[in-house]
Amino acid sequence: MSQVIELVPNFSEGVNEDIISGLVRLAQSTPGASLLDYSADSNHNRTVLSLVGSPEAIKEVAFNLIQYAKNHIDLTQHKGAHPRMGATDVCPLIPLKDTSIEECVDLAQKIAKRVGEELDIPIFLYEAAATAPHRKNIAKIRKGEFEGMADKIKEDKWQPDYGPDQVHPRAGATAIGARMPLVAFNVNLDTDNIDLAKRIAKIVRGSSGGFKYCKAIGVMLEDRQVAQVSMNMVNYKKTPLYRVFETIRFEAKHYGVGILGTEIVGLTPAEALIDSANYYLQTEDFNPDHQVIENQLLNDL
Amino acid sequence: MSQVIELVPNFSEGVNEDIISGLVRLAQSTPGASLLDYSADSNHNRTVLSLVGSPEAIKEVAFNLIQYAKNHIDLTQHKGAHPRMGATDVCPLIPLKDTSIEECVDLAQKIAKRVGEELDIPIFLYEAAATAPHRKNIAKIRKGEFEGMADKIKEDKWQPDYGPDQVHPRAGATAIGARMPLVAFNVNLDTDNIDLAKRIAKIVRGSSGGFKYCKAIGVMLEDRQVAQVSMNMVNYKKTPLYRVFETIRFEAKHYGVGILGTEIVGLTPAEALIDSANYYLQTEDFNPDHQVIENQLLNDL
Repeated sequence: MSQVIELVPNFSEGVNEDIISGLVRLAQSTPGASLLDYSADSNHNRTVLSLVGSPEAIKEVAFNLIQYAKNHIDLTQHKGAHPRMGATDVCPLIPLKDTSIEECVDLAQKIAKRVGEELDIPIFLYEAAATAPHRKNIAKIRKGEFEGMADKIKEDKWQPDYGPDQVHPRAGATAIGARMPLVAFNVNLDTDNIDLAKRIAKIVRGSSGGFKYCKAIGVMLEDRQVAQVSMNMVNYKKTPLYRVFETIRFEAKHYGVGILGTEIVGLTPAEALIDSANYYLQTEDFNPDHQVIENQLLNDL
Repeated sequence: MSQVIELVPNFSEGVNEDIISGLVRLAQSTPGASLLDYSADSNHNRTVLSLVGSPEAIKEVAFNLIQYAKNHIDLTQHKGAHPRMGATDVCPLIPLKDTSIEECVDLAQKIAKRVGEELDIPIFLYEAAATAPHRKNIAKIRKGEFEGMADKIKEDKWQPDYGPDQVHPRAGATAIGARMPLVAFNVNLDTDNIDLAKRIAKIVRGSSGGFKYCKAIGVMLEDRQVAQVSMNMVNYKKTPLYRVFETIRFEAKHYGVGILGTEIVGLTPAEALIDSANYYLQTEDFNPDHQVIENQLLNDL
């Protein structure tokens, strides 16, 4: 099997089933690309697709999906819990197999250029594709959201990388970028104390002195009355799941609180779990590339 | 990707580098088959190859390897920690992709017939290919080892399935069969007390009242002076690695002995490790087929 890139576009529509199924059908009908997963969330009013394919197929399907979203989603009518600035809000490319983050950056630039020129949507390159340090973080780019973007985009430091210097009246602006695979990993504490979840989130996240490649917030699962440490593990090779999990365990223990369970949301590379198995099973000299059959089968293709 | 069968022949030579590299070269030079892994263990005096390929390629390479072993390995000179009865001791076929255990049984019979007729080695069909219940288990077939096989083979119940009614004077006898993927999993105890390793092996193995799908023996790693529980996990879905590992840990603790580390020898399906990661990380509702990217990539092919 040759190069595989993952594309995870986020669209600002999580309710209208015609539009959602239109996106899904488009994703499924592009030769060379496969839709692995999608989830539409009506609270967030947002749909997230996960596709994989060759660089060429990903370039094609990304443009087609962004075009479809522009034609069918109207941000002036959009309300939802999740912050957003565009019909296609963010569109990250992720190197999965026989490809590098640099190649994904290159591809992101090409998609951004075409979308900017042909669809009249201003594009911000973000994460590994960002053209300045202050534009790496999607939260900073998106601050002000769709409603504030018309003014923000006039500031020198928020000039788009591609496309027009003004926000599209219905489709807003879009961030396209490249990043490593991340794992959405949540730890449910045996308590309804949201403050404890927030305190532990602060302990483990990089931004406040914890693990560099862990992003974490404390949230309340209202239906279960369970406080949760909700995380994005943005580099599971350098900050492995088990290390953060064990840290949460011993920090919670300080307050006499145990762990109810954990959640992995959406897709994960096998490696993120195999690394943790190797830690707990105390394996000596285990080589996943070589010893895990699936890795060999994928390499042989 | 079309049908893939794995072949894991075990040869009674783990020291002589000429013979080991002869086997490896032969395995690497068969069109349609790939050598995924091999390990030569001087304590066990045994080399294990893992190959994958199409049914036709596997049939061909199996015969060629058994022939090579017959011509180069002399059991009358063999000493090692691992029990053995033949130059090629066991040769299981394993369905990996788009094939069934029944197809592997069929292929095992064809290989056994040719080896018996052309190489004059008595063949026992074992595991899923066994022709009687008492012949399923390799340990029972092999009991008495090379030295005792000449007498054993005269008993009615130990007539070989193919080949001559007498043991080959240097190459002994060979078991060929079909089975599901297994994981060779060894736990190194922090002691040189081989009796303890044997006692714990007896506790965890199915045949003496332990876990049904765990086979275990106690062995001594002479070079490290470490006592080891050496296991084959023959159905990691029903007897997962973590369960046996934790049992060994608490049984060893009874004697004040800790765990030095573990080894996974050769190949493992990702699932065997992902299951253990899910246990230790306490994941709720994780669906490996759907959530592990590699599984999706392989299914797409």
